[in-house]
Amino acid sequence: MTATIIGSVSCPIPVTDHDRVVLGHGSGGKLSAALLKQHFLPHLQSDALRQLGDGAVVSAGNARVVLSTDTFVVNPLEFPGGDIGTLAVNGTVNDLAMMGATPCYLTVGFIIEEGLAFETLDRIVASMARAASVAGVQVVTGDTKVVEHGKGDGLFINTTGLGLADSDFSPSPDGVRPGDVVLVSGAIGIHGITILSAREGLEFEADLESDTACLHPLVQALRRATDNSVAALRDPTRGGVASALNEISAASRVGIVLEESALPIPAAVAGACEMLGLDPLYVANEGNFVAFVPPHLADVALDALRNHPLGRGAQRIGVAVSDHPGMVVMRTPLGGTRIVDMLPGDQLPRIC
Amino acid sequence: MTATIIGSVSCPIPVTDHDRVVLGHGSGGKLSAALLKQHFLPHLQSDALRQLGDGAVVSAGNARVVLSTDTFVVNPLEFPGGDIGTLAVNGTVNDLAMMGATPCYLTVGFIIEEGLAFETLDRIVASMARAASVAGVQVVTGDTKVVEHGKGDGLFINTTGLGLADSDFSPSPDGVRPGDVVLVSGAIGIHGITILSAREGLEFEADLESDTACLHPLVQALRRATDNSVAALRDPTRGGVASALNEISAASRVGIVLEESALPIPAAVAGACEMLGLDPLYVANEGNFVAFVPPHLADVALDALRNHPLGRGAQRIGVAVSDHPGMVVMRTPLGGTRIVDMLPGDQLPRIC
Repeated sequence: MTATIIGSVSCPIPVTDHDRVVLGHGSGGKLSAALLKQHFLPHLQSDALRQLGDGAVVSAGNARVVLSTDTFVVNPLEFPGGDIGTLAVNGTVNDLAMMGATPCYLTVGFIIEEGLAFETLDRIVASMARAASVAGVQVVTGDTKVVEHGKGDGLFINTTGLGLADSDFSPSPDGVRPGDVVLVSGAIGIHGITILSAREGLEFEADLESDTACLHPLVQALRRATDNSVAALRDPTRGGVASALNEISAASRVGIVLEESALPIPAAVAGACEMLGLDPLYVANEGNFVAFVPPHLADVALDALRNHPLGRGAQRIGVAVSDHPGMVVMRTPLGGTRIVDMLPGDQLPRIC
Repeated sequence: MTATIIGSVSCPIPVTDHDRVVLGHGSGGKLSAALLKQHFLPHLQSDALRQLGDGAVVSAGNARVVLSTDTFVVNPLEFPGGDIGTLAVNGTVNDLAMMGATPCYLTVGFIIEEGLAFETLDRIVASMARAASVAGVQVVTGDTKVVEHGKGDGLFINTTGLGLADSDFSPSPDGVRPGDVVLVSGAIGIHGITILSAREGLEFEADLESDTACLHPLVQALRRATDNSVAALRDPTRGGVASALNEISAASRVGIVLEESALPIPAAVAGACEMLGLDPLYVANEGNFVAFVPPHLADVALDALRNHPLGRGAQRIGVAVSDHPGMVVMRTPLGGTRIVDMLPGDQLPRIC
């Protein structure tokens, strides 16, 4: 493929044959997958890396721990509902939680662009501290680098998390079986549209705030309700719900059928997406997850989510099928079906 | 203090009263310490963070593990003897080794500036793989972000390492007692001068190559020779030997007396420093460490270092004393004494 569709605009960006990195390689879509497959995996071979989960399960002495790392480059640094510091804590804590681990410790690495106001830095570090406290994790070590003005963009933050793995509870992208029901724990697309609005100074009819949150307690509620029977969990950040489901569909070799009418898309998100030519299924989220559960547990799982403050907007949105493995399709209210593929590149760059 | 000396140039940069981050805040000197103390520690309180070691010792189940994180922003990306990938692996592995831990796993986070050539990226990732293989560590998970052209500088890499702590061997910056002997495991100043030469296109009489290396085997040799009796270890990267010794001197509340004539400074480093007005004691190293050992073990320790390929240039360079705690002084060949303070800011920015 050498010509593709990004958002609703036809765009002649080839997925392959780049000799330089383009923005789309950071999108969480097809270009990101190609970058990983062509430029990292051939060199950095390890069993853990090949799992391609949200993190890696490794042995440390007698303990099994989960490590996850994420770098945050969101622009702007501060936005309604949070800032880069909140995201940097919640994002990595959530990656651990999606693997069934109990988040314990974070390390943090800052790259500061010369000229960043200490006022801003202080607010962001205070946000990190609050988010870490809410999540029950400790920031145990860190590093700071400063680069010249024009060689960075205010502040980039890496967080790496260590969590304790639990042998009784290890949802995995390759754990889904046909028949499993797809749940989403809350409204779709809010974080991405909030960032875009803040960045571009857009005003929509309703005020949006990022949904950034620590999802570990919600995962635990789901876990208890299903007696550990959660097949797969993923927080649909970069690349949105569509990319998360495509990855799970490929890893588990199942098809996924979504019901468009069941998707919890707030009117403000739907309106903004329509105006901007975006598809909410590809817009980043920071406070919800998709979960796959066996069909007989779908109702109790949905109840458990809805009874938790972070899961009030949970919905059953689809089902895994044995047909078309590796492919996600969506049934429209009018009875049609369309393929929900991964995008090659970005709808919205630097969203987290 | 509001006016200070940087390198050999009198410079009116105040250490305090900044309202914005300046390059010196990333120097590993006084400004870095002030940044940490004033802007990070007040918010991010944890016992581990307050230790201010090269990493943090934490419990994971029944295991005691060490976590260390470091972000690499070296410019240029490639230089004689290595590249940012080699540094990113060895730097974090060495931080674990300095705490007495056995390095096991690395996570890696890339921030790529749009436009980076894949040819360059591939060479750097291959370097990381080679360095990880030599160090015996596995890269287990990673993350990639891409920022727009002009919002980064080619490539920044964060690595976070997990090592197994050893209750029999835990050298620590606060473990030094008066009388302990100061050793350095090899020549001083090579990495920093190599980077500066590559960056500025300078040519010196001798070709220099970065000394970047995994120091864990050398630490183990020292450990075996001293039956675990190493009081403190530190790799003098940013800020050089002078900053590392000042930190240990402060943490252990001892004075340190260096013998200038004993410092292993290669002629090429000395010549370049003289020409450029730099002090080699503040120039970054990536392939040596300073070690404090009890006086009765100093000779066997030095022999053990010199018998290892990475420690051939080891020297006994000084001693810890009960006088002037927190202060490092140097005896010159002519019998004089001068204070070796920490610098406020940078001699050489973006050296690692």
